Amino acid sequence: MTIALFSIGTELTRGEIVDTNSAWLAATLTEEGFEVVSINSVPDHPDAIVATLKRLASEHEAVIATGGLGPTSDDITAECVARAIEAPLVVDESALLSIRRRVEARGRTVTPHHEKQARVPAGAELCPNADGTAPGFSVKLGRATLYFMPGVPREMKRMFREQVLPRLRPNAPNDTFVIRLRTFGLPESTAAQLLEGLENEFEGISLGYRVHFPELDVKVQARGVSQADARERATLVATIVRDKLGDVVYGEADETLSSITGRALRARGWRLAVAESCTGGLISHLLTASPGASDFLIGAAVVYANSAKTRLLGVSEDTLRGHGAVSAEVAAEMAQGARRLCEVDVGLSVTGIAGPAGGTSTKPVGLVYWAVAHPGGTIVRERVFHGDRNEVQVHAAHAALDLLRRAASGMSEGAEIPLSQRPPVR
Amino acid sequence: MTIALFSIGTELTRGEIVDTNSAWLAATLTEEGFEVVSINSVPDHPDAIVATLKRLASEHEAVIATGGLGPTSDDITAECVARAIEAPLVVDESALLSIRRRVEARGRTVTPHHEKQARVPAGAELCPNADGTAPGFSVKLGRATLYFMPGVPREMKRMFREQVLPRLRPNAPNDTFVIRLRTFGLPESTAAQLLEGLENEFEGISLGYRVHFPELDVKVQARGVSQADARERATLVATIVRDKLGDVVYGEADETLSSITGRALRARGWRLAVAESCTGGLISHLLTASPGASDFLIGAAVVYANSAKTRLLGVSEDTLRGHGAVSAEVAAEMAQGARRLCEVDVGLSVTGIAGPAGGTSTKPVGLVYWAVAHPGGTIVRERVFHGDRNEVQVHAAHAALDLLRRAASGMSEGAEIPLSQRPPVR
Repeated sequence: MTIALFSIGTELTRGEIVDTNSAWLAATLTEEGFEVVSINSVPDHPDAIVATLKRLASEHEAVIATGGLGPTSDDITAECVARAIEAPLVVDESALLSIRRRVEARGRTVTPHHEKQARVPAGAELCPNADGTAPGFSVKLGRATLYFMPGVPREMKRMFREQVLPRLRPNAPNDTFVIRLRTFGLPESTAAQLLEGLENEFEGISLGYRVHFPELDVKVQARGVSQADARERATLVATIVRDKLGDVVYGEADETLSSITGRALRARGWRLAVAESCTGGLISHLLTASPGASDFLIGAAVVYANSAKTRLLGVSEDTLRGHGAVSAEVAAEMAQGARRLCEVDVGLSVTGIAGPAGGTSTKPVGLVYWAVAHPGGTIVRERVFHGDRNEVQVHAAHAALDLLRRAASGMSEGAEIPLSQRPPVR
Repeated sequence: MTIALFSIGTELTRGEIVDTNSAWLAATLTEEGFEVVSINSVPDHPDAIVATLKRLASEHEAVIATGGLGPTSDDITAECVARAIEAPLVVDESALLSIRRRVEARGRTVTPHHEKQARVPAGAELCPNADGTAPGFSVKLGRATLYFMPGVPREMKRMFREQVLPRLRPNAPNDTFVIRLRTFGLPESTAAQLLEGLENEFEGISLGYRVHFPELDVKVQARGVSQADARERATLVATIVRDKLGDVVYGEADETLSSITGRALRARGWRLAVAESCTGGLISHLLTASPGASDFLIGAAVVYANSAKTRLLGVSEDTLRGHGAVSAEVAAEMAQGARRLCEVDVGLSVTGIAGPAGGTSTKPVGLVYWAVAHPGGTIVRERVFHGDRNEVQVHAAHAALDLLRRAASGMSEGAEIPLSQRPPVR
């Protein structure tokens, strides 16, 4: 069974909104074992909508459409469906009643705009809307079943889960399983090289790569005779992939580098203080994006000016003068200062030149030092990151979190990150 | 001239990423006066890609495709284009050279995976990639021109602006002009009410609203006999819109609340220190996202634990005990402490309960206090923000920046933000 998604609305083709409905539907259907093979959007033009409906119905077994069921004049989906299936539009009395109840419960009067939403193609099967006035519906066209839902994400999601998914489920193939490994520190091409040939070695396995800067996801997708079989195949190959890629694999599925770093700190019983310069608060922001950061994060200082480095963190003026604010020595003193200041177990620091200005011939834009000061000593790392200001900041923040993750978990501390010749300050 | 967009990749049809590329392209093309009439996605299946290319080329004059140009085995766009136009794949020597230079400049060795990206359909016109290894290209198919770009948003956007748009522009209708006003503090329905009737009053004007949380963009789009005429109409109506909406309009086009706040601080000659609790570094991150933050931002403290509030900012233990960490009094002391600590002109603070846990009956999740301490005194604001943890953090950070913008510009300090009965601490 193949499924097509169809988002209807000029707000999409004019780029006024991003089609998050299709992404949500695609993810939900994929989790249920279905394959979405086509995603489509057209503006609120009757001919375009009718033609797309006919084409999708001829190519797929199910079409899931959203949008254009509202009260205004540019909501023309029901009308277009009626044209496509060559049926008249009729008023559905039960839909009309529920619209009336809903509108009147809010102390408003029913207008022809509201009543318009009860008009559906004759023969359509209704999908009541628990969260809004416009009902959804389904019709048959050729061998395909077409489902229509409102475009409002909250109404659509509930209707899909409660009304549409139960009707689709009997047709779910249920023979695939995907494991998504999250990595930091490997370029896509290197990962592909390390895993070369794996797809041919194992039947029913395909590998996928997805860069979301500065990270790389490696997906192990398995197809089997049943979902249990597929899960077993995927698990086996994922173990091999983890083995080949090493500890650049930091987690799975929706885990993030910051959540895993937080988990490692909790497990170690380490309380953390952060000192950021060029990353300007990004590390703290990433760490506090998930709840529970207060378990380990005591405080952080964003020390943009040299005076703040000295005043807040006790970085020595001699070090700043002698080595410059962007130096291994200052990174080390920042991490140590944050640790001392907050009286915690571990300090994490970053100092660098995010750009676009501020670079010199010896200290180019993108040069970043980061350090972890922990009970066993201080580790400093150095790298020149490429890209624009935002990319340098994001890359540096992730590199610093990764070093902290490695230090807290007792792993090799960043062998995958190329270092300069300068020996680390200990 | 009609345009179709085509996003290629299983990561889209599996819902692993949202198709922001199509939304960006659609918005950019719309602003240039083009009409996007079809948006399409298919997985990395050769037959589906080839069939979609042929269909779109037969229906539209331009097809703009993204994705599938990378180094790995699932990147098959060039191969599919070659099949669709019935041309062989050939190695483009200039592309190969630029890939080599790019890879070697980063100290890595060129692999067959990199080289694969230099293979393009014979006869294709290359679009160099300034930010990555994979070049884009264009080909003719029937009466349509097809453009192919990488899926990485940054690479795609630059290539589109510098390579594709200049080739499309001669065909632009060139009789429209759009002014996008950026606002914070007004719900969409209120903005629409304040601007009701404006579209009917002025010929060729349409208004568009786009929420991107927690902000609202109001777009004034004008159509005229020429672009100069359209620009004049749009400018006139934009002035009226600014007048009706007041100082919730903080900027235009790509200006951000943080960049405008930074500009106001620079203009006033105010140096800033920030003290964040529940926003966890987000304010600092937003302020340092644009270059030049070091002109005004001296330092910031993320004071998650009470001990950090006392130790770093000198918030009194009595105040913490008496009013709790989430209180107007602590917000005021945090802002004053940051100002004193960094010896600057203005301190900005936020303290609140981002959730999901930590709420009580008197202090619910979402309760946030923010304060600005400046030479004229201290202003504190309070509000309960709705939404999940991330939404509370983002909304609170914007509210705090907006108060700072208003204070630095000498505007009304947040009249548009509903306040509780509690009188502000002065």
